[in-house]
Amino acid sequence: MTQQVLYCNNVDATLNNIIEGGNYNAVMVLVDTNTHKLVLPKLPCLRRAHIIEITPGDDNKNLDSLVHVWQLMHNAGATRKSLLVNVGGGSVTDLGGLAAATFKRGIAFINIPTTLLAAVDAAVGGKTGINFNGLKNEIGVFALATSVIVSTCFFHTLPPKELKSGYAEMIKHAMLRSQKHFFELLDFDLGKIDKNKLLELIRSSVKTKEDIVNQDPTEQGLRKALNLGHTVGHALESLAMEHGKPVPHGYAIAWGLVTEAVISHMTLGFPSDDLYILARFVHDNYGAPAVTCDHYDRLISFMQHDKKSSNGEINCTLLKKCGDFTIDNTIPPDTMKTALDILRDLMGV
Amino acid sequence: MTQQVLYCNNVDATLNNIIEGGNYNAVMVLVDTNTHKLVLPKLPCLRRAHIIEITPGDDNKNLDSLVHVWQLMHNAGATRKSLLVNVGGGSVTDLGGLAAATFKRGIAFINIPTTLLAAVDAAVGGKTGINFNGLKNEIGVFALATSVIVSTCFFHTLPPKELKSGYAEMIKHAMLRSQKHFFELLDFDLGKIDKNKLLELIRSSVKTKEDIVNQDPTEQGLRKALNLGHTVGHALESLAMEHGKPVPHGYAIAWGLVTEAVISHMTLGFPSDDLYILARFVHDNYGAPAVTCDHYDRLISFMQHDKKSSNGEINCTLLKKCGDFTIDNTIPPDTMKTALDILRDLMGV
Repeated sequence: MTQQVLYCNNVDATLNNIIEGGNYNAVMVLVDTNTHKLVLPKLPCLRRAHIIEITPGDDNKNLDSLVHVWQLMHNAGATRKSLLVNVGGGSVTDLGGLAAATFKRGIAFINIPTTLLAAVDAAVGGKTGINFNGLKNEIGVFALATSVIVSTCFFHTLPPKELKSGYAEMIKHAMLRSQKHFFELLDFDLGKIDKNKLLELIRSSVKTKEDIVNQDPTEQGLRKALNLGHTVGHALESLAMEHGKPVPHGYAIAWGLVTEAVISHMTLGFPSDDLYILARFVHDNYGAPAVTCDHYDRLISFMQHDKKSSNGEINCTLLKKCGDFTIDNTIPPDTMKTALDILRDLMGV
Repeated sequence: MTQQVLYCNNVDATLNNIIEGGNYNAVMVLVDTNTHKLVLPKLPCLRRAHIIEITPGDDNKNLDSLVHVWQLMHNAGATRKSLLVNVGGGSVTDLGGLAAATFKRGIAFINIPTTLLAAVDAAVGGKTGINFNGLKNEIGVFALATSVIVSTCFFHTLPPKELKSGYAEMIKHAMLRSQKHFFELLDFDLGKIDKNKLLELIRSSVKTKEDIVNQDPTEQGLRKALNLGHTVGHALESLAMEHGKPVPHGYAIAWGLVTEAVISHMTLGFPSDDLYILARFVHDNYGAPAVTCDHYDRLISFMQHDKKSSNGEINCTLLKKCGDFTIDNTIPPDTMKTALDILRDLMGV
């Protein structure tokens, strides 16, 4: 990956250095209504930048917003030597990355994630996209930000739910990396956050993602490892959405990680001790999903139609142990149902 | 470049081989109304492909058409393992390339150029795009087709003007390559085309482009060599458009090549013999541009606002001799006016 990821507490100075060194003929900043109000005032180096604002939320990560960004970049007189700075959560970095990557066949962009989820997931690794036709990230490209500036200094305005949502992706990375990292993550107190410690945990989390992405930037194979927890997680997320009671992405992923660890235990001998430690942490921090056995068929149908599946089979990344994963495992529906039973048991449903 | 360019007379068999070997779960073909009627019947290997049709012409290389293609790919159930075959001129390959490169972050596509201009220019080298806000190719990405199938077998339905238009880009490539190729091109009889000979000339023309693109795929520097003739050519094209009397792209490029050869002679000693041979060929095959000295200021304004210019200066690729080029030359307006005087003289205006 030729993407530079910088970890710091002084975002303005870091960003200013990059801009000064870049010789850009125009600088634009993409914000949503929230980051415009809360974050932009903390970045005085952007005071002369052209501001492009979009409505917050994944619902607005759509074609209309993309065209709006293109239009305002055009109005700002952007050329190939201009820079777009994306300041926000995953919706902003996904949309802004796509807008920059497609404007005049690609201009430079910098991501400044303002949520934990964006810092450890959306903002690094080069995936950009918008939703289209009701499908998430249906339109997009792989395009690396020139730089990503990761800081915990914006997180104090995040609701605890948002922080936990991002933390689930960090647990996933730790499980893909090693038991040591896994334990380190589960030892951290989410109720009383030490920001310096969190920044260090984020650094090793992003490192895990970078190591995998570097080996397979366009998701031909290995990168699917990052799908751990997501086959079940996405299905739980879709079910909750369908019932009009949406859950944060990371909560669904946390339950997905437990379920897929159960399947890993059943089929590959993933250690039961680690499974129980994970289940306890998820139960204590994320509560339980609203699932009964009446929902199993619908959940399995979601899994069979997941973007990562092919031929209508359920495709999961599984673990022999933390740090030892295998991609492209086909899971029989009955095995999945048993795992969902055990998930509900472990979560006390 | 990892792009495979195949030269053949049996396009259907060649395409069929690629499709059979590719294990695609869906094949779609993008055509315009013309290639749907005239070319698709000659490609029986596509008889079960999902057909996506757009309206012909550069005017329709726009966002509406792009969304239409995305929508029909979605309706066809396209996944990352699907294939889009673009059959048409530059508008089709530019639009189809962008649609494929942005669908689910990129699916495979094959270009089958049906015009000489697309064969030697648009379909190879990875530039894709649509027009936006009145600007050509304002939105796009660099994305290589998996394969490009080049054949002269579709050209018999092309009007002579279309053929000549493409041929101007071939002359440009020859001038960038060597005097030998330059002479070879100008010796060819455009009035009475030998198709086998033409296919060989196309092959060496595309080779020249590939060699340059390989060294600089995203146009950071060297690739600007391919802009030879285009600073003046685009200005002449824009002027003609503004006067309501549009000229084919390649005609404007042919006159641009003469003008920029004049400047090359004035400033870098490009041989006058080669200049006169070029001027004669262009005069005989492309006629003269409708330009008087009253248009010079407008032409210069177009050149100063060209996509490749920066800081409002006129930027040209120039030649010391055929095969020896320099990029990023700044041309003073007075020099340009003198060169336009000489162009008019050479073309007998």
